[in-house]
Amino acid sequence: MSVTAEPGDRYVIGVDFGTLSGRALVVRVGDGAELGTAVHPYRHGVMDAELTAADGRALPADWALQDPDDYRDVLRQAVPAALAASGVDPARVVGIGIDFTACTVLPTLADGTPLCELPDLRHRPHAWVKLWKHHAAQPQADRINALAHSRGEPWIGRYGGKISAEWQYAKGLQLLEEDPEVYARAQRWIEAADWIVWQLCGTETRNVCTAGYKGIHQDGRYPSAEYLAALNPGFADFVTKLEGPLAQLGDRAGGLTAQAAAWTGLPEGTAVAVGNVDAHVTAAAAQALDPGRLVAIMGTSTCHVVNGTELAEVAGMCGVVDGGISAGHWGYEAGQSGVGDIFAWYVQHAAPAGYASHEALTEAAAAQPVGAHGLVALDWWNGNRSLLVNHDLSGVLVGLTLATRPPDVYRALLECTAYGTRMIIEAFAEAGVPVDELIVAGGLTGNTLLMQIYADVTRRPLGIIGSAQGPALGSAIHAAVAAGAYPDVPAASATMGRVDRDVYRPDPERARAYDALYAEYRRLHDHFGRGADDLLLRLRAIRNAARTAADPDVAGPAATPLEVVA
Amino acid sequence: MSVTAEPGDRYVIGVDFGTLSGRALVVRVGDGAELGTAVHPYRHGVMDAELTAADGRALPADWALQDPDDYRDVLRQAVPAALAASGVDPARVVGIGIDFTACTVLPTLADGTPLCELPDLRHRPHAWVKLWKHHAAQPQADRINALAHSRGEPWIGRYGGKISAEWQYAKGLQLLEEDPEVYARAQRWIEAADWIVWQLCGTETRNVCTAGYKGIHQDGRYPSAEYLAALNPGFADFVTKLEGPLAQLGDRAGGLTAQAAAWTGLPEGTAVAVGNVDAHVTAAAAQALDPGRLVAIMGTSTCHVVNGTELAEVAGMCGVVDGGISAGHWGYEAGQSGVGDIFAWYVQHAAPAGYASHEALTEAAAAQPVGAHGLVALDWWNGNRSLLVNHDLSGVLVGLTLATRPPDVYRALLECTAYGTRMIIEAFAEAGVPVDELIVAGGLTGNTLLMQIYADVTRRPLGIIGSAQGPALGSAIHAAVAAGAYPDVPAASATMGRVDRDVYRPDPERARAYDALYAEYRRLHDHFGRGADDLLLRLRAIRNAARTAADPDVAGPAATPLEVVA
Repeated sequence: MSVTAEPGDRYVIGVDFGTLSGRALVVRVGDGAELGTAVHPYRHGVMDAELTAADGRALPADWALQDPDDYRDVLRQAVPAALAASGVDPARVVGIGIDFTACTVLPTLADGTPLCELPDLRHRPHAWVKLWKHHAAQPQADRINALAHSRGEPWIGRYGGKISAEWQYAKGLQLLEEDPEVYARAQRWIEAADWIVWQLCGTETRNVCTAGYKGIHQDGRYPSAEYLAALNPGFADFVTKLEGPLAQLGDRAGGLTAQAAAWTGLPEGTAVAVGNVDAHVTAAAAQALDPGRLVAIMGTSTCHVVNGTELAEVAGMCGVVDGGISAGHWGYEAGQSGVGDIFAWYVQHAAPAGYASHEALTEAAAAQPVGAHGLVALDWWNGNRSLLVNHDLSGVLVGLTLATRPPDVYRALLECTAYGTRMIIEAFAEAGVPVDELIVAGGLTGNTLLMQIYADVTRRPLGIIGSAQGPALGSAIHAAVAAGAYPDVPAASATMGRVDRDVYRPDPERARAYDALYAEYRRLHDHFGRGADDLLLRLRAIRNAARTAADPDVAGPAATPLEVVA
Repeated sequence: MSVTAEPGDRYVIGVDFGTLSGRALVVRVGDGAELGTAVHPYRHGVMDAELTAADGRALPADWALQDPDDYRDVLRQAVPAALAASGVDPARVVGIGIDFTACTVLPTLADGTPLCELPDLRHRPHAWVKLWKHHAAQPQADRINALAHSRGEPWIGRYGGKISAEWQYAKGLQLLEEDPEVYARAQRWIEAADWIVWQLCGTETRNVCTAGYKGIHQDGRYPSAEYLAALNPGFADFVTKLEGPLAQLGDRAGGLTAQAAAWTGLPEGTAVAVGNVDAHVTAAAAQALDPGRLVAIMGTSTCHVVNGTELAEVAGMCGVVDGGISAGHWGYEAGQSGVGDIFAWYVQHAAPAGYASHEALTEAAAAQPVGAHGLVALDWWNGNRSLLVNHDLSGVLVGLTLATRPPDVYRALLECTAYGTRMIIEAFAEAGVPVDELIVAGGLTGNTLLMQIYADVTRRPLGIIGSAQGPALGSAIHAAVAAGAYPDVPAASATMGRVDRDVYRPDPERARAYDALYAEYRRLHDHFGRGADDLLLRLRAIRNAARTAADPDVAGPAATPLEVVA
């Protein structure tokens, strides 16, 4: 970073809490220049086999826990390191904002003390943070959905018809049913995003984003006690563990406590923004808060967020939340559960020597005319999040011949993820949520072939975020708003965010050729995904039965990541 | 070979004319012992790009020619070399028999002189031998089939409803329409199998096998002049180039001429058996002439032959011919156009380093319980010969996940070819042609995992031919019958043939598990192969259009081998 701090400048810090580490970024308020960054890996990473932070006891299949003190370590380590790298005088820092993976959630006392930090609960797995990819609450999610539909709960359509096993209610119900004592002692059930803000400013806040997308907060209320009691009589009080006023994104949660000031090296009282989510905060960083500008955060998986002016129910979306991306708009979210993961799988497990790199494959694949490989694939290697919301689906590759070569398959895999994005865009458009352009962030932006394919397939101009640290920059933008440096998030985004718009434009001829292939994808998608033939589900059942019969200790399918920002 | 020739023994020679070379094998009449063998590669191999045997002119796409003198070289080189290797006194050789690829066909004068050996026709591509995989007569085949169905020709059902572009009529019609002068000067249009016998004994014969399977000879006659004239008025006389008495397999065509005796080193007058086809002759070598014993010659592709007691029309079979495998039975033929080719494709183009060998993949795949990989594939990498008779179909792979590993895919590929064989067996059975056991010959017999999968999937006991030179041994058996050493082919087969029966038996539990997967294969097969969704054909059309648009010089799809014996 060649930017130099000037004596009169003011700064903010954005902290991005990812799955394996936290990153701090020092940003200049006046123009969004990035002056220094540092990453701190979580000491206990993801605890998915053993409770390594306590007594090392084995964890059941599909669990994924974290240690909340690892998050504090990011404040203690990464923030001072980023400050040091930036050369910025801490006294010039006016705000701090954070974003987190979600739904990552923990039980605490009324004062915010994590239950896992109470000596008598330290060895209880349910006392720890449940990471977003904790997938052991699927039975609870199934009941939540079935009951919501049977009772006609008004909120279920806001989530595309399905509440995820990853979210607050399924995880909370699992807690109640598997460890009622810990459930009873949990005075609060809180997103890590809100909890870390609590650690910074000493005040509990709840943000509209996670409350809406993960907490089923719609039209000013949570699900009714009657509904919750019907799930489980003991669950009727669940909302009391969540309740409290909700803050808009960019609001000031409070000022840095003396303790947090000591951790970070920042002045006590520094403005702290309310919590936010990695994908959603990236929209501000990419100057993509205007309705119609869809942000695709493309990494191992893809998360799509887009603002809309009207409320619409889109079958298969993750959710729609009032102010969920920025105040004053309806924030829509969707996702594809496998993208970069599929390309990496191909390189690692299906590419012969000589083609075992993305570069070699991309170069050879780029030379092909559209359709010349004769292939079409369904991008369901990791299931399908949107629009089908089914993680038992699997990938399909059609059109193979003896003349099929690795660049052919690789290109078909790139393309099928673009078709999946077009399915989502069309679902939004058909429901009345327009998508006029794509803005891409995340680790895959560097693949120019992939980006051009997305522009051609979606027939939309495609821009690229101008920062390699989109989430952390987005958090810094929210910090600047919380500090009063800008009147609102859009204004801060306009000055501090960065995007190169229209980097890729659809080529009319290629777009026409892709229309024909997309039509085939769509037909195949509906055939295998919408009930005409449940072959993929039957194969999954056959597979699981065969594995269980061979080794009863083997758990089911591998955990399915549902929300990753690269 | 540790067998020693005894002074009193008699011997026969079998010569197998393959796609790239000819092999001679010296066999003892009394017990079928193999005493010596030699291979001679064709000097001009397959001429599919240039007419290298003449002026080197370029050939159109999809052509495949051979030089008939290369076949004589096999007699001149391989037969004496095999004799020398065997240590057998040529005076003790009582017969010679041959088998050939089919339909491999050439135009000759009335005395058998190939037109390509006439100085003024040497540079005319149509004067040369058209190899079985010459695929440039598809337009003619399409017309042959359409007209046969519209006229309700009685013979079309004997060929599963489709005459192949590879066979005598399509190739002959192409000759007429593209080089009428060569057509006019062709007094005979003869299978290479019959032509090489003519070279050996000086007498033209026609065998019931190629006349039936490739020459549409049914119920004692060829297609009518009216039908042929309707195809093309100039084609009305086509049958005059074929006609003549037909000989049963194992009949004596004549005695070795002085010239052929000089070529081979055998005594003049040695009995010469009538011509035969590589796949069909293997049934005798494998002691599989009894009805219900299906021989699968498994190499790059698979050819299936089985005798039946009754005449039945089986949709999608290659053909049924009276005495086509052995006199007195109806001989049925079917095939799969890609088998070993698909496994080789996988190893070469889809297996990462560390798995780039059949051995490594087989070892890892063998450890899996049936169904544990969660995959099912359609084995159409090289199109589908039986039952769908469509070479524009392509392969499909279903059930891929991020956890899919190379042995999973490899095993799924092995399995899908077994499912394809079961489809054929069931089609025969449903039409009243029972298949009670499998006898496997060819290059894939050594893969024990593959063999066990075939037994489990088909629920049939599986035997293995006892010779590595099945076709040449089969030809030697026919030579012994022609020499009068046995009363008929079954008797010679019983003594001289070799098979290990019941080497693999279906395991009840695995067979049950495969029933479920086969049901999925069959459903997928019908969906993509029988008109519910012509996705594969549309993808092929898209592919070909994209390639042609990009480079108008590029010809269509690669030639599709339709009959190969490994």
